[in-house]
Amino acid sequence: MKHLISPLDLSVSELDEILDLAESIIQDPKKYANVCHHKKLATLFYEPSTRTRLSFEAAMLNLGGSVLGFSSADSSSAAKGESVADTIRVISGYADICAMRHPKEGAPLVASKYSSIPVINAGDGGHNHPTQTLTDLLTMKQLKGRLNNLTVGLCGDLKFGRTVHSLINALVRYENISFVLISPEELRIPTYLREEVLEANNISYKEVNVLEEVMPELDLLYMTRVQKERFFNEEDYIRLKDSFILDRKKMEYAKPDMLVLHPLPRVNEISTDIDDDPRAVYFKQAQFGVYVRMALIMKLLEVEVC
Amino acid sequence: MKHLISPLDLSVSELDEILDLAESIIQDPKKYANVCHHKKLATLFYEPSTRTRLSFEAAMLNLGGSVLGFSSADSSSAAKGESVADTIRVISGYADICAMRHPKEGAPLVASKYSSIPVINAGDGGHNHPTQTLTDLLTMKQLKGRLNNLTVGLCGDLKFGRTVHSLINALVRYENISFVLISPEELRIPTYLREEVLEANNISYKEVNVLEEVMPELDLLYMTRVQKERFFNEEDYIRLKDSFILDRKKMEYAKPDMLVLHPLPRVNEISTDIDDDPRAVYFKQAQFGVYVRMALIMKLLEVEVC
Amino acid sequence: MKHLISPLDLSVSELDEILDLAESIIQDPKKYANVCHHKKLATLFYEPSTRTRLSFEAAMLNLGGSVLGFSSADSSSAAKGESVADTIRVISGYADICAMRHPKEGAPLVASKYSSIPVINAGDGGHNHPTQTLTDLLTMKQLKGRLNNLTVGLCGDLKFGRTVHSLINALVRYENISFVLISPEELRIPTYLREEVLEANNISYKEVNVLEEVMPELDLLYMTRVQKERFFNEEDYIRLKDSFILDRKKMEYAKPDMLVLHPLPRVNEISTDIDDDPRAVYFKQAQFGVYVRMALIMKLLEVEVC
Repeated sequence: MKHLISPLDLSVSELDEILDLAESIIQDPKKYANVCHHKKLATLFYEPSTRTRLSFEAAMLNLGGSVLGFSSADSSSAAKGESVADTIRVISGYADICAMRHPKEGAPLVASKYSSIPVINAGDGGHNHPTQTLTDLLTMKQLKGRLNNLTVGLCGDLKFGRTVHSLINALVRYENISFVLISPEELRIPTYLREEVLEANNISYKEVNVLEEVMPELDLLYMTRVQKERFFNEEDYIRLKDSFILDRKKMEYAKPDMLVLHPLPRVNEISTDIDDDPRAVYFKQAQFGVYVRMALIMKLLEVEVC
Repeated sequence: MKHLISPLDLSVSELDEILDLAESIIQDPKKYANVCHHKKLATLFYEPSTRTRLSFEAAMLNLGGSVLGFSSADSSSAAKGESVADTIRVISGYADICAMRHPKEGAPLVASKYSSIPVINAGDGGHNHPTQTLTDLLTMKQLKGRLNNLTVGLCGDLKFGRTVHSLINALVRYENISFVLISPEELRIPTYLREEVLEANNISYKEVNVLEEVMPELDLLYMTRVQKERFFNEEDYIRLKDSFILDRKKMEYAKPDMLVLHPLPRVNEISTDIDDDPRAVYFKQAQFGVYVRMALIMKLLEVEVC
Repeated sequence: MKHLISPLDLSVSELDEILDLAESIIQDPKKYANVCHHKKLATLFYEPSTRTRLSFEAAMLNLGGSVLGFSSADSSSAAKGESVADTIRVISGYADICAMRHPKEGAPLVASKYSSIPVINAGDGGHNHPTQTLTDLLTMKQLKGRLNNLTVGLCGDLKFGRTVHSLINALVRYENISFVLISPEELRIPTYLREEVLEANNISYKEVNVLEEVMPELDLLYMTRVQKERFFNEEDYIRLKDSFILDRKKMEYAKPDMLVLHPLPRVNEISTDIDDDPRAVYFKQAQFGVYVRMALIMKLLEVEVC
C-alpha cells in the first residue's frame, strides 16, 4: 500500500487494519500525538473543499506533523499551465505525503504515477473520494459495532453521488449486507452499479421512491445532498432538491438504534429538528473522519508508536 | 467565560485578569512558549482580514499551538450553502478553539450556541470586534500605566466605526474617564451611545469638529479610518475622507506624553511624517494585539503555566 | 547581512557561506531539524506563486519553525489601501523573518527599510528573485562540483527572464565562465547586461539562435519558460513560444555529463520525453531550492546548530 486513489485499492484486511488503528487512536489519542513529528503533509486542493482539507490538516497536526499547501487552483502553479505530473514531482521534494483534490477525474491517479511520496485522493470530480468512504465505515463500525449483517438505506441523489457509489462498492465485500435504495426515478443508481456490483455479487437490494415506508427496516440511513452542480438544468434541480427530506416525523418510524449518517455539508435534506436525536450521528461522523485520516497517514508513512 | 462574542461579555475583573496575564507574557514570553502544545486554533474567516487573522495565528504559534482554517468565504463550505451552526459543529471536532470573522452581525453568537469549543468573535460586520478592544486597553495600560483618569480623544468616523463604539463601552466602566469626540457632523456617534452609555453613566464628554483646538487636553488620541464601504455614496466619501488628518503640525499642540493609537490599517488619516514621533504608538499597539490574544486563548482554553 | 533583496546583496564569500551551509544540511538534515524551533516565518505573497511559497514553507518547517501568511493580495490588507511600509511594521511584531513576493519592482526593498525583521525578496515583478539564483548556484555546485570553469548555455526568453539576468550577474563573479546565449532575435538579453556586465567584465559569450548546433559545447543548459504575461501581444507569443524546445533528439548532441536546469514551472519548452534522462536535473533543482532557503533563513536569523 503506497497510495490511496480508489477505496477499492485497499483489500478488506488492509481496510480492517486502518479501521483498527483508528479505533486505537480514538481510545488513546495522546499516544499518537508525536508519531509524525517532523513529517509534512501537502494539501493540494485544486478546488475548494474546506471540510475535507481541514480534516486532513487536523489529522496531521494531531499526529504532531505539520502542513503546507494550497486551497484553490488560482493560487497554484496550475494557473501557469503546469501539469499535475510536474507539480507532484516538485512537491515530492517539499513534503512527506500529500492529499490531492482535483476537479478532473483521474488527476490523483496520474499524480501517484510520478510521485515519490504517498498520494491520497481527496476527491476527483464525481469519481472517487476514498477517505469519505473510510470515514463512513469507521462511523458504522464504531457506532453499530459491526460492518456485516446490516440493512443500509441510501437516500437522495444516488445517480451522481460518488460517496454513495463508493460506499456500496465497499460494503458489498462484507457479509450479509442488504441495501434499500431510496430516490426519485431520475436519480437512481447507475446501471453499472446495479448490474456489475449488486447483481454480480448477489447482493440483496430494492429500489423505492418513498422514504417513509422503508424506515422501519433500516439499521442505517445514509442521506445525501442533492448537489446543484450535478444537474443539467435549474428546473430539474428545483423540482427534485426537496424530495426525501428527513424530519422528526419520519424518524418516528425508525428503529430506536437506527443511525443517520450524512457526508456533509447538509443543505436542507435533513431537517435541523432531528439534530438532537441521538440517532443523528452525522457530526460525530465528521469527527471520525479525522481519526481515520490519522490512521491512513500513519499506514502510508509507515510510522509506528514506539 | 466560555466564548468571547462582545467586549461586554467580560466583567471588569475578567478583563483585568486578561490584561494582567498579557502583561506577564510581555515580561517573559518564553515561559509561555509551550503552554498550548498540541492545541489547535481554527481561524474561520468568512471575509478577509489579514491583520486580525495573522495576529491570532501568531498568538497561537507563540503559545506552541498550531493553526488551521480558511481566509475567505469562497474557499469554505459556505459556498455550498452550509449554515454557520453546522460548520461550527464540524469544526468542534477538528480544533480546540476558534476565531471567527463574519460579514453578518451575530454569526459568531450563533456559532457559540452550537459549538463545543470556545468561539472568539474576530469581527462581525459593523458590530463587535472584542479583541481589538482588548488590544486598545492593553496598549493604554502598558503605555500610560492606567485605565482611569484619562481624557480620551476619539477622532474620525465615529458613526460607523465599531472599534470606537466598543472602546467607549469598555472605558466607561473605569473611573474618571472623559471623552472628546472629534468628527464631522455627519459622522458623530450614534444616539444610543450618547444617551444610553455616556449620559446614562454620567460620563463627561464633548463633541467638536476641529481636531487642532482640543489637542492640548488629550492624554490619548484614538484615530480611525474613514471606511469607504460604510458610505452610502462616493461623493460623501470623497468630501469627508480627508477630514481630520493628523500631522506633525497638529502634534505640536499635544502634550509631550499624549499617545496616538489607531486600529490599523491606516490609509491617510495619519500622516507618515509622525511615524517617528515616540507618541505614535500604533505599530506597538498591533504587537500588543498578539500578546492580548495569547492571554485570551490561554484563559478560554484554561491552560496554565506549570 | 540583514535582508536579501537582490542576489548581488551577497558578496561571493557570503554566498559561499550559504552554499556551504546548504551542503551541510543536505548531508545531515536531522541535525538542523530544530534550529528554528519557536521561530516564525511570514510568507507575504501579494501575487500567487505556489512553488516559491511552498518551498519557503517547507524550508522553515524543516528547521522546526512555523509559518503564517497570505497567498494572494485579495486576502490581504493591501485591498484596504495599506502601504507595504505599514504592513511590514505590523508583521515585524508577528513573525521573526519574512519572505515577500510582490508584483511591483522594489516593494521588498521598501519593506526592508521599515522592517525590524529580515526581509527576503521572493520575487518582485520582472526584477529580482534572489532565492531562485541561490537555488541555481547550489544545483550547479552540488551536481557539477564547481562554480568556475563552466560553459553555460542560457536558452529561451533572455529578454524578460529575470532568473537568467540574475544568474548571469551571479556567475560573472566566478572564474572562467563563458556563456552561450540561445534565443530568437526578439528575445536577446538587454543591452545593459551585454555592455555593463558581460563586456565590462571581459566575460566570454556568444549569441546564437539555433540550440542544436551549440549543444556539444555546453556544461550546463539553463532552459527558461516563455512567459505569456511578458509579451506585448498574443501573436508574438504564439509565434515564439515553441522556439527552442529541448527534446530527446537535441540531447543526443550534448555531453554525457551536461546538466539541464529549469526554474520551473515548465510548459512545453522541455519535452517530457527527456524527464528520465539523468542529465535532466530540474526536479532535483526544485528540491535544492528548499535546502538553500533553509541555509538562508538560518543565516538571516543567525541561528546555529548547538
